[in-house]
Amino acid sequence: MNIYDIAKLAGVSIATVSRVVNDSPRVSEKTKQKVRAVMEENDYTPNVFARGLGLDSMKTIGIICPDVSDTYMARAVSFLEHRLREYGYDCILYCSGYQQEKKENAVELILKKRIDALILVGSTYAGHSEEDDGADYIREAAKKTPVFLINGKITGENVYSVYSTDEDAAYSAVSGMIESGRKRILYLSDSHSYSANKKLEGYERALREHGLPVLGELKLYAKNQVHYVRDILLARRALVFDAVFATDDGMAVGTVKYAHARGLKIPEDLSIIGYNNSELSVCCEPELTTVDNTGEKLCNMTVDNMMKVLNGEEVSQEIPVKCILVKRCTTDF
Amino acid sequence: MNIYDIAKLAGVSIATVSRVVNDSPRVSEKTKQKVRAVMEENDYTPNVFARGLGLDSMKTIGIICPDVSDTYMARAVSFLEHRLREYGYDCILYCSGYQQEKKENAVELILKKRIDALILVGSTYAGHSEEDDGADYIREAAKKTPVFLINGKITGENVYSVYSTDEDAAYSAVSGMIESGRKRILYLSDSHSYSANKKLEGYERALREHGLPVLGELKLYAKNQVHYVRDILLARRALVFDAVFATDDGMAVGTVKYAHARGLKIPEDLSIIGYNNSELSVCCEPELTTVDNTGEKLCNMTVDNMMKVLNGEEVSQEIPVKCILVKRCTTDF
Repeated sequence: MNIYDIAKLAGVSIATVSRVVNDSPRVSEKTKQKVRAVMEENDYTPNVFARGLGLDSMKTIGIICPDVSDTYMARAVSFLEHRLREYGYDCILYCSGYQQEKKENAVELILKKRIDALILVGSTYAGHSEEDDGADYIREAAKKTPVFLINGKITGENVYSVYSTDEDAAYSAVSGMIESGRKRILYLSDSHSYSANKKLEGYERALREHGLPVLGELKLYAKNQVHYVRDILLARRALVFDAVFATDDGMAVGTVKYAHARGLKIPEDLSIIGYNNSELSVCCEPELTTVDNTGEKLCNMTVDNMMKVLNGEEVSQEIPVKCILVKRCTTDF
Repeated sequence: MNIYDIAKLAGVSIATVSRVVNDSPRVSEKTKQKVRAVMEENDYTPNVFARGLGLDSMKTIGIICPDVSDTYMARAVSFLEHRLREYGYDCILYCSGYQQEKKENAVELILKKRIDALILVGSTYAGHSEEDDGADYIREAAKKTPVFLINGKITGENVYSVYSTDEDAAYSAVSGMIESGRKRILYLSDSHSYSANKKLEGYERALREHGLPVLGELKLYAKNQVHYVRDILLARRALVFDAVFATDDGMAVGTVKYAHARGLKIPEDLSIIGYNNSELSVCCEPELTTVDNTGEKLCNMTVDNMMKVLNGEEVSQEIPVKCILVKRCTTDF
């Protein structure tokens, strides 16, 4: 049972059904009652399709990211904005920060706008674990508008996820380091987000499958800031490691700085892999081997998908996208 | 003659005058005619104040920047968004690109939205020269909504500019290099924007005032991309220079890479100054001396100013903000 069936049964156009779903003042109360009766009889829940027909659309998409000054997110917002405008849509942008309360608040506020769909950029919106993921506010939001996650994954009706396969990427990167002789690989992260946890899983799987122990002392959490990372590594002189897998290029560059300060040779004494293939990765010396999680592809796929959803087409709710390891000079495999 | 006078003469509230100015459907045609007659008799032009009362406001500000994936602009948009939200305002973001036609198009499109004011981020919107500045489309836009330029300056009614004093900053930076013994300073830029031209003026003034010639061969325009800059400098082996003043950190990092490739010592053989004090400036080795043009301050002042304008308060249309030279390891003064 879809909107076409409802329209036919109610003897109105699909445009009218859409307007009823949107409670438009342009439809008479009588027609509304008739259409609603048909919907109830047929157990039809007003869905994305009906809403997405866009007859009362403002052609505006809400975008929320935690922090647009972050390089990865800035690029994502840029890609999204371009692609959306190709389709004739505008963006409203909110930056929510990383705290649960603020994220919930941002979603609540943006839903008060007349948006056709909501995009959440960054895996911070995907919660922490598969079970208690703190993402119920997103599922609630999805009752009002289709929600698209970029690089996060939550299950729920009217929620769509396009995400990079970070577990696989981390597994390959760390495996490469192990196979080139590294035994004590530091996992360096600034986050417990969904994607960071996926990277951690890949890291641990690589260790296990290669018969290496998973050690708590080799998991280090730090601010994603070059000098900060350099300094905390320098402060932990007793910590021994021969490789670093960082979940962001900024932290990997901090590790390069640390190696310089300690007089360690890269990659001979210390092998380093970053993440995101950002501009930072080619600024340091030697330049970083880094995982390219194909942000542009994720963004374009999300927008293309969204347009299909808004047109009532069927799309997959979960689309994994492969990452690429960009080999430069901080690794020897 | 202000909105209070009009309201008094027409025997209505200022809220009603504002609604008439905004052509609100909530005011009867009769009242509209009465208020408009009073406005005409008294030669009262509906101004920002009336519009800014915000009675029909969507509490939404339009932001246009050429490219939000640019680090400087991403940070600016982030600062603006935060500050605006403190005041309860939302942002609509457009990325216009750098071409004149596309910039004009972006302004035209965003004006169709119900925005309370428009912010243009980046000096590309300020045109090229003082006379024929290609900024008439902005003056036109300012007839409809107050326009705020960040790091650009154009004169016009209802146009407000907050900009960093790039000419002074470039003059000081280049003077420092000259006084520490540099004779052939390369000016490296990716743009002919208003602020880039101001930097060029400061560079030339420093040379002239120190009795050095201004040479065309020492002005080089390139893409703001690390490897691109390194490669074009490597390709010009006949070009002799002992210092580089770059109008963006990315190009300065490219120069650091060039020096490494040529085996030049920094700063002994080559002194380098970047611009923006971005994250890139601490990634390379040695770390960059760079001009901090205090983006956060520009953004916050712009928003604070805007709120005053929207409240009908008098503010200065031009606010210059001083830059700071952050000395790190690529200079020896």
